[in-house]
Parts: sequence; C-alpha cells; structure tokens
Amino acid sequence: MDKSIGVIDIGSNSVHLVVGEYHNNEYFHIIDDVKVNVRLCEGLSETGCLREDRMALGEQTLMMFKNMCDTYKLDKVIAVATAAVRKAKNGQVFVDLIKKTTGIEIEIIPGETEAAMDYLGAINTIDIRDALLMDIGGGSVEFVLIRDRKMADAVSLPFGSIDLTEKFGLEDVATPGKLQKLHAFLEEAFAGVELFEKARGLPVLGVGGTIRNIGRIHRRVVDYPLEIAHNYRMCEDEVAKICHMTAKMNLEERKNLKGLSKGRTDIFVGASQAVYKVMQTIFSPELIISDAGLRDGLIFKHFGNGPEDLVHNIFDNSLVNTMLNYDVNIPHAYHVYGLSVKLFEQLKSLHGIEEDVSRMMKTSAMLHDVGIKIQYSNHHEHSFYLILNSGLEGLLQKELLMSAFIALNHRTNKKVKVEAEYMTLLREEDKRLIDKLSLFLQIAEYLDRSMDGIVKDIDCDIKDDVVEMMVLTTTHSVFADMIISECGKKFKRVLGRELTIKNKVIAAV
Amino acid sequence: MDKSIGVIDIGSNSVHLVVGEYHNNEYFHIIDDVKVNVRLCEGLSETGCLREDRMALGEQTLMMFKNMCDTYKLDKVIAVATAAVRKAKNGQVFVDLIKKTTGIEIEIIPGETEAAMDYLGAINTIDIRDALLMDIGGGSVEFVLIRDRKMADAVSLPFGSIDLTEKFGLEDVATPGKLQKLHAFLEEAFAGVELFEKARGLPVLGVGGTIRNIGRIHRRVVDYPLEIAHNYRMCEDEVAKICHMTAKMNLEERKNLKGLSKGRTDIFVGASQAVYKVMQTIFSPELIISDAGLRDGLIFKHFGNGPEDLVHNIFDNSLVNTMLNYDVNIPHAYHVYGLSVKLFEQLKSLHGIEEDVSRMMKTSAMLHDVGIKIQYSNHHEHSFYLILNSGLEGLLQKELLMSAFIALNHRTNKKVKVEAEYMTLLREEDKRLIDKLSLFLQIAEYLDRSMDGIVKDIDCDIKDDVVEMMVLTTTHSVFADMIISECGKKFKRVLGRELTIKNKVIAAV
Repeated sequence: MDKSIGVIDIGSNSVHLVVGEYHNNEYFHIIDDVKVNVRLCEGLSETGCLREDRMALGEQTLMMFKNMCDTYKLDKVIAVATAAVRKAKNGQVFVDLIKKTTGIEIEIIPGETEAAMDYLGAINTIDIRDALLMDIGGGSVEFVLIRDRKMADAVSLPFGSIDLTEKFGLEDVATPGKLQKLHAFLEEAFAGVELFEKARGLPVLGVGGTIRNIGRIHRRVVDYPLEIAHNYRMCEDEVAKICHMTAKMNLEERKNLKGLSKGRTDIFVGASQAVYKVMQTIFSPELIISDAGLRDGLIFKHFGNGPEDLVHNIFDNSLVNTMLNYDVNIPHAYHVYGLSVKLFEQLKSLHGIEEDVSRMMKTSAMLHDVGIKIQYSNHHEHSFYLILNSGLEGLLQKELLMSAFIALNHRTNKKVKVEAEYMTLLREEDKRLIDKLSLFLQIAEYLDRSMDGIVKDIDCDIKDDVVEMMVLTTTHSVFADMIISECGKKFKRVLGRELTIKNKVIAAV
Repeated sequence: MDKSIGVIDIGSNSVHLVVGEYHNNEYFHIIDDVKVNVRLCEGLSETGCLREDRMALGEQTLMMFKNMCDTYKLDKVIAVATAAVRKAKNGQVFVDLIKKTTGIEIEIIPGETEAAMDYLGAINTIDIRDALLMDIGGGSVEFVLIRDRKMADAVSLPFGSIDLTEKFGLEDVATPGKLQKLHAFLEEAFAGVELFEKARGLPVLGVGGTIRNIGRIHRRVVDYPLEIAHNYRMCEDEVAKICHMTAKMNLEERKNLKGLSKGRTDIFVGASQAVYKVMQTIFSPELIISDAGLRDGLIFKHFGNGPEDLVHNIFDNSLVNTMLNYDVNIPHAYHVYGLSVKLFEQLKSLHGIEEDVSRMMKTSAMLHDVGIKIQYSNHHEHSFYLILNSGLEGLLQKELLMSAFIALNHRTNKKVKVEAEYMTLLREEDKRLIDKLSLFLQIAEYLDRSMDGIVKDIDCDIKDDVVEMMVLTTTHSVFADMIISECGKKFKRVLGRELTIKNKVIAAV
C-alpha cells in the first residue's frame, strides 16, 4: 500500500492540494494543504467555456502543485476536476493542456462520484447514522441520503455559489426582488429532487466552504470559545439567523464580517440561501458541519475505507491515531483507562452520574499524558491544549472540551476552574462532572504511577463515612499515603467520604 | 551508545527519577519525572543517622523506581545519593539495603562532584559565559565559579534548607532574633568561601527547588505571563523583595502563598535567605534560574557532553532537537530562514532595526510550521503554543515570546495584537519589531510556498515609493500576484513602500 498521497481537487472556485502520509507506517497525518482561488468557473455561464486567463492561472497553479508532489516524493497523486471543468465545452482542452505541461492526469468526475466521495469523507469522520449530506461548491451542489451510515441515494445539481451569484446578481446588495427570484429558482430546482422526500426531518450534514463559513460566522456571533469547524452543530433557527443577516448586508459589510473568508464575500449569499432553503424544504432541525469532504473521501477510498469498508469505529480510530502521533505510552494509558472505569463503576452510588460519559472518560484517560510530547513539566496543561486542538473525531465538541478539562484537572486537588470564555459552552453541572471524572482519573493515574501495570484489581467498599479501597498489586506496593495526600481532600469534597487504601501484594500470575 | 537513561537522584529532601531517551536515535526527550518527598535528611542533625522511617520510605520509593526502570527497559540507570546519605553515619547501611532489596547500586557522590554535575546541567542549557552557580538543596549547598563557560573552581558546604530550618527553628514564624542568628551563621560560613572573592559582580546561576520557588513566587507576584522556570531572570531588588516577604510570613501564610510548593513551605525561609545573602556577599546584580541541574548534568555526561565537550551551540542544538521532535520539514524551514535573512539584510535602510534579532528570526523561521504536528488547520496558532512551551534553550524568555508571536503572525496582514496579559513583558516597540519580522517571514514563506526551494536568490531595489523585488527561480514561477495580495498591504503599512515582484526563471544549476 502506498504510504503518502497527494489529492488535487480542481473545483469551480478554488484549486486545492492536500498532502497526507502514514508516518512510520502507523498513523495518518495531513502535512500540507494549499488553496489557490483560481475561479475556473468565472465567466463560464456566459460563454460555456473556461476563460483563457482562468486556465492560465490554473496551469500555473498545477505546475506548482506538480513540483510540490515531486518534492514530497509522493507515492500516489490523485487529481480530480469537478463542476467547472465538467460543464465547460473546453473542459477536455484544459485537461489535455495540464497533462502536456505538467504531466498531471486529471479525472473529470461526474456529480454522483463527487457526492459519493463527499459522503465517504464525512461518514468516516463524523459519528452519525442518518442525515442528508449537502455539498454546495462553486459550480454544483451534491446531495446524499445517508441511512444507517450507508449511501442510500445521491444526486448532483449543476449550479453552485458562483452560478447563483452571476445568475441573480448577488455580488453586492441582494435586493428583495433578487432574493425573491433566487428563492423561486431554488424552490423549483429542489422540487425535482426526489430524495428530499425521504430526507424529511433529518439533520443536514454540510460540506464545503460556504457551509464552513456559515459555521464560522456563527461562532463569532455567539462568541463560541472553540475554533473547530468539524462537527460544529447549529439548530435551524441559528442557520436562519446567519443567512438572513448576511443577505441584508452589502459587499462592504460582508467584507468586514468576522468569520467570512475574503475569497467568499461576493459569492456567499446565493449559496447560503440555498443551504437554508434545503433545511426548510426537508424540515431539518439541525446543520452538522463536516470539515471533511471530497478530498478526504478520495484519501479514505485510496487507503481502503470505501463504501463497503467504512471506518468501523471513528472515535477509537481517531484516538489511536492521536496516541501514535504523540508517542503516548499506550500500555499505561490503557491501564489508567481501565482503572478509572472500575472506579466509576464501583462508586456509582456515590457519584450518581447517569448520562453517557464513556467517550469523555476514554478520551481523557487515553490522552492524559499526551502533553509529555511537548514538555514534561506542566504536561497536563499541554494535554489540555493537544486534546482540544488535534482534530479528534467521534465526539461532540462539548465532549471534547470536557475531556480536555478532565485531563487538565487530573493533577490538582482544586475545584475545577473554567475560564469565563468557556462558560458559554459549559454549565455548572458540567463543571461538577469534570470534577468527578478527573478525580477517578487522578486516582487511576496514581495507582499506575509506576507505569508498570502492577495494580491488578481494586475493590471499593462504601461505608457511611468512608470508602475503603482494597488494591491488589503484584511485585511492589502502591504509594497509598501519597494517593491519600494527593487525592484525599478532593475525594471528600466530591464524593462526601473519606478515602482509605489498603494494599495487598499478590503473586504475579 | 545507550539510547535511554534513567537517573535516580537521592537527595536530602526528595528522591527523583528522571527518564529520557533518544527517540528514533535522533533527538533527546524527557518522558518521565517522578518525585517523592522522602526527606531522608529529617532528624539527621539530631542523631547523625538516617531515621528508620525515612529509610523505609526511601526503600519503597526505590523499589517503585526499579520497577519503572525495568518497565521502560532502560539501557542505563545511574543512581546517586547526595548530602543526606553522604553525611549520615549509616549512609552505607542504606546503600547496602537498597542494593539488596532492589539491585540498584547507589553511588554516594562528594559535594564537588555534585557541583560539577550542577554545572554541566546548567552550562549546557543556558547560554552564559561567566557566573557563580549556586545549588542549595536539602542538606548541602554547592558553588561553582564559571569563567568563560569553564568550571574555574567549586566548593560544597554541608548545610541546606532542612539543616537551616532545624538549626534555627524556621518552620513557622522567623522572629527577628532567629533571622539574626541565621544571618550571622551564613556570614561566617560564606566568609570562608574563597571563590566568592573572584565571583564579585557576577550573576548568580541558581539551581534547585528553593531557587525555582523564588522565581515562581515572583512570577505570581508580578503577574508574569509565561510559566517557564528555566532562564527566568530577577534583579537583586526583586530577589530581595521575595526573600523579605516570605521571611515575614508564618507557616499558614506561606501555605497560601501562590508559587510556593506544598512540600517546601516549612523549609523555604532559611534557604531563600541564604540565596539573598550570597547575592549580597558577591554584589551580584542578577539571579538567573536554571531548571537544569544535577540530574541533567549526569545525563549530559553520560551522552558525551562532559566538561571538556560542552554543548557547543545551545541554541542551535535545542532548535534542531525541537524540529526533530515535531517532524518539521527541515529543508523548507532552512530555505525560509535563508530568504527571511536576505529580506532583512536588503531592506535594512527601510526597517532600521539595529538590535540583535538573529535568534528570534531563526527560531520563528525554523519553527514557523511546527504546529502542523498538531493539526494543519490553524497551524500558525499551534506553532505559537509549541514555540512557547517546548523548553527551547539559548534564548531569553522575552525572545522566546517574541519568536512565538512572529511565527503566529506569519499568516496575517493584520497589525500585531498582543493579549493584555503579555504586555507586562512586551512594549510598543517590541510589537513593531514583531510586525516587521513577521512580514519578512511571511514573504519568505510565500516564496517557498511550493516547498521545493526554487527561489535561488532575491534582489530588492528600494525606490522612493516602491520596492522592486526581483526573484530568481528555477523550474516554475512564484505566485507573485498571491504574494502581493497577501503581503502587499502589510508591506506598505510596515515599510512605507509599495511592493512589486518580478520573477525570472533561470536554468537550474
């Protein structure tokens, strides 16, 4: 199997090169991502042809990409072209030109293939079973009906953000008249999409720059504390708010709007209106944004995760990838995870946690020491940063933030302090949860402080005032006194009991 | 050569195990660091012997350390004991006991060896030529006169923080009478130290927990924005302030003092007074804190950086180590660095920077992409975090912070924004410097955006209103338009000229 890959995506608005590799044959990591706003689509609707100047910029861009691929010594390069080249009468001329001057062989993919790759990118990185995937690009829009993680149906329509902008004159102010015409057009186009009927009530799984920008603008508006595009979720009202707000702005106002990309200020209104119109049409309650799409889908397919072989467990897969990236001591991480689960189970009557905290417990336990990669001192703070910023998949963003806080607090007795900025996302009961789960992690971590897995079992006996913990070890004893002195106060505060520890050394099996 | 090492340091106050390894045979990284407050020294001054309970805790601790060393499969374990074991009549009994129960062979090292190892740890990680090194531990204090990076002289005195506390009853309130007696004792002891005469006016290079705590308390008091112990610097007045303040506190107040470790509240006053007394005695203007000491010295010696083979260039050595740790694309980093230096040189008459910014330019250029290790998206922000927190050596802390800001700003046109918290360390002119240096880095980065080193040379022609930059490339052209659109505005703002770029493609040599 090839170990490094470059994916060139020749879109209607921009041309991308993404480079990724299996590091040490172990874990996958994106090491480069270049975008050039070539706007191949520009003027296409007038003449039906790619314009000379756009093709020239495309050629220069692909020349650079070719050099980059050579420099990276990639095992495999995949180049695909979507709507602009697909629709243009001279699309093949462009493909031939690029082949001649750069050697890159571009495959013009049909809309349905584009939809299928969008689906692969999203479904392998977001833990969802049923949704309507929507990818609106510069020159087309794709829809995939996802049922039980499978692609049940797909369709591609031949208009995108640039077409809508040009057709309805939406660069600057969208007058009520223009918007009305836009809506009428969209309603007619969407009326012909049969799969919408079966998508009624599903969340929209959104792919592409327009939708990422809707999310980013919203995060700025509500002062959202995290800057993570992937798996950001907005309810229908929130999407409506952003789409209405931006439609009322003129170009200058949009240029100054925080969260909206420079290269997208003029072509944003038509496409964002289309997103909202889809949500209305299928009565969708929620927009779930995927940062992964076509390019990621091509990478997944290449490395064996095609439609019949989806990533089985997105969360575990991502966790392992992250542990390998940062050289985590995996046996220790698993052992600490196992012990913290035992504590959680055995102390259930005291902590009373009912909700599903399994992913947060696993994330924080497996990655509690990940910050050592940065520097040993203050590594719990570095673990906080790395858990939040490493693109972990399979968790909600709130779960990710809480996991980071649990890991951060696994080395302190103090009550959880949450900076004001994060409180827009966390409530008081979340803080109490962090407090409890970080206590279990802290005790588990001390039980394996010798890193050698000597604690074979624990048995907590809950009395009226005290929890008597019996610890079975092989070889040597745990530091019962140290654990009590480091965690005893927190235990008492959080669970209302004293903690005592007895150690029994048993023969190793 | 062995690739992984464990260093066990049996001190008077605490017992440490540090584990480090050469990862992929390439770069050194500390992967574990455990401390147990064994307090072997406790009661020693009364009987001249290590107490049974202290030895038992020491034995349990070393049993755990032995298991850890086995689990890590270390190539080499070094165990040394310092003052407590050295001074105790039953020191050898303890060493024999440990050998018997754990197999660990402890070497009792004399004070002069301890001083020499402190010296190796500090001199290989802090870029300084002349200083008086001082390491005050629990049971002894070492001094090394450093001249031109060499160890010119060394001495060890047989008292430390625990001795001073016990001898003068300083656990709780230090009454004026107690302090007076302490000072008289210190004056007499220091009067006999001949090398102090030759150390007149030198900075004190401080090693050990007491001195690290002086620094940490000071950072809390002045709201210092970084949490970095190593190479933190305080002038004589600042040291005086912390030492006077803590001497007036009772034990309860010291327990609540931010920055002072829990395990050190009772033994802090005597030792910190000794530090200040030394500064007074030699008329030292400054305390430079080294986070590296004995244990690091032993590691350096083991891996070939002994007194005759010091790390030649601490800064470069640390930079390379960091690049390897995060899989930086090294050819690209070097190329960008070279181009930014060329821009700096050629635009000298416009930017007018006189001070030495060479280390900041190198750090920010070599590490501008380091954040890709975390995640490609927003990698400049991750680079900021990693530059600040990776323990880079050979720079002042302020240079480190500015380097992080230069890297952070290499992807934006905007004026440098510095969060209020950092402004205690940076002034307005520093922000202007960051603005200029990040501009050069940004242009250099775009010139090698294709990652393939095609730009062989640049030639900037400074006219009245414009800077005409001629770029010589091989193979393909640079994206002149993209560079202008991304950096032109910033160029104009920072240097007061328009930027134009001409590209000449020359044959590859």
